[in-house]
Amino acid sequence: MERSAIRNGKIVKESAAVLPVTYREVQYSFSVYEALRVLKGHVVHLDDHLRRLAFSCGAIHLSHPFDDGMIASSIEALIKADSIEDATMRILIVGGNQPLFFITYTDLLSYPDSYYSDGVDCTLYHGERFLPEAKTSNLLMQYIALEEAKRKGAFEALLVNRNGLVLEGTRSNFYGLSGSKLYTAPDNLVLSGITRISVLKAAKAIGLEIVFNPPAEDSLESFDSLFISSTSMGAMPVRRINGIDMPRKSWDTVAEICRLEREWE
Amino acid sequence: MERSAIRNGKIVKESAAVLPVTYREVQYSFSVYEALRVLKGHVVHLDDHLRRLAFSCGAIHLSHPFDDGMIASSIEALIKADSIEDATMRILIVGGNQPLFFITYTDLLSYPDSYYSDGVDCTLYHGERFLPEAKTSNLLMQYIALEEAKRKGAFEALLVNRNGLVLEGTRSNFYGLSGSKLYTAPDNLVLSGITRISVLKAAKAIGLEIVFNPPAEDSLESFDSLFISSTSMGAMPVRRINGIDMPRKSWDTVAEICRLEREWE
Repeated sequence: MERSAIRNGKIVKESAAVLPVTYREVQYSFSVYEALRVLKGHVVHLDDHLRRLAFSCGAIHLSHPFDDGMIASSIEALIKADSIEDATMRILIVGGNQPLFFITYTDLLSYPDSYYSDGVDCTLYHGERFLPEAKTSNLLMQYIALEEAKRKGAFEALLVNRNGLVLEGTRSNFYGLSGSKLYTAPDNLVLSGITRISVLKAAKAIGLEIVFNPPAEDSLESFDSLFISSTSMGAMPVRRINGIDMPRKSWDTVAEICRLEREWE
Repeated sequence: MERSAIRNGKIVKESAAVLPVTYREVQYSFSVYEALRVLKGHVVHLDDHLRRLAFSCGAIHLSHPFDDGMIASSIEALIKADSIEDATMRILIVGGNQPLFFITYTDLLSYPDSYYSDGVDCTLYHGERFLPEAKTSNLLMQYIALEEAKRKGAFEALLVNRNGLVLEGTRSNFYGLSGSKLYTAPDNLVLSGITRISVLKAAKAIGLEIVFNPPAEDSLESFDSLFISSTSMGAMPVRRINGIDMPRKSWDTVAEICRLEREWE
């Protein structure tokens, strides 16, 4: 059976969730999005996602008539229409003279247990995001970096800025643990992940000090351990970077952060 | 009457030229495009556009099954279907497991004579394009820079890199004339405009020396004149930048370059 979707607040067939190629804002990727988890019919951290969606719109001067109440009730309508239990949902808002608003969904993204017990491989990609704080469709660099990582058998690509600092992954935030300190990029240089908020809260709860300095490319092996986080991953340890084994001195701490973060959903 | 369009080589109604929001490569702006002029039913510089389209695909590792012959015959089919005389045509190719290929068209873009006789106003925007040589849909920075220019009453925004060099406009190339020398960015830093090729050829034909150094932000007033070029504009003089009057010592030379460039269409 074909899935349903939301288009401008109305339930439609998923095949009707389409963008005209002649619309200027589609051509220019002038749009923002959010990816949310639905668990047992309940949307996780909805308020945080709506807040970030509004922030992203503000960052690129995208105005639209779809208010939070309307978006929330559209999500509820879609959950009801397809009796959704678990799913990954995607909100997309395209700007312009005739703003467009979509919600679509896929099976819940999840990863094998071994990704958490053994860690994942990452590559490094030298490049800087335009407006890193905003979650926009301007994702070509992330796509290219991630495809390159996949070709090398890695799970994620980490983005390195012109100063050699590892700021974030293509679809994750990035952290280094060193003693009782957790190092990560400051909020203004990266996408402020919803899961990142919980990760930092969990880190504080177990007594870690947060240091808003991102790990440097040439210092990665000096950390006790490195990990990434995202809405679909939670917190996931990094085993290798560019083929080099990374330290795993405090993976139990990473696992504890992951456990706490998931508990708060 | 609704316009026709091409979708994957077939004639369709323009309203069927749409992109599924659920397709990953649409979500990531993993696509390339070209804008072409059709004059009296004839496509201008088709070979150059097809060459650049292939170059853009190569630059982002986008592979697709739509060869030059197929694209050219699709353009011809569209011209015939709608008896097109003059138009601006747009080719779009989206990558991924199921590549998509579209051709759509609009009325021919053209500008008032006064833009050429009086020049246009530009603003400066500090930002660098990702993969500047490729014509991709990753256009959010250009959109934001141009909207800001429009809010200030300007016609185009010029992009300034981290070293204070004015490389190109959001949809144009940029040049400074100084004595018998024409200054512009080297090919590897900017989009190699089809019209830029003709502009450089025209400049040589009238005895100018091409210097591949882009004008610096703080030296703009020291040039004899400044101008921009694009497929739809031809060569167009710049009157003001960020509200400051620019020199117009050699606008007759700009006009001569513009005349020659158009003659070769």
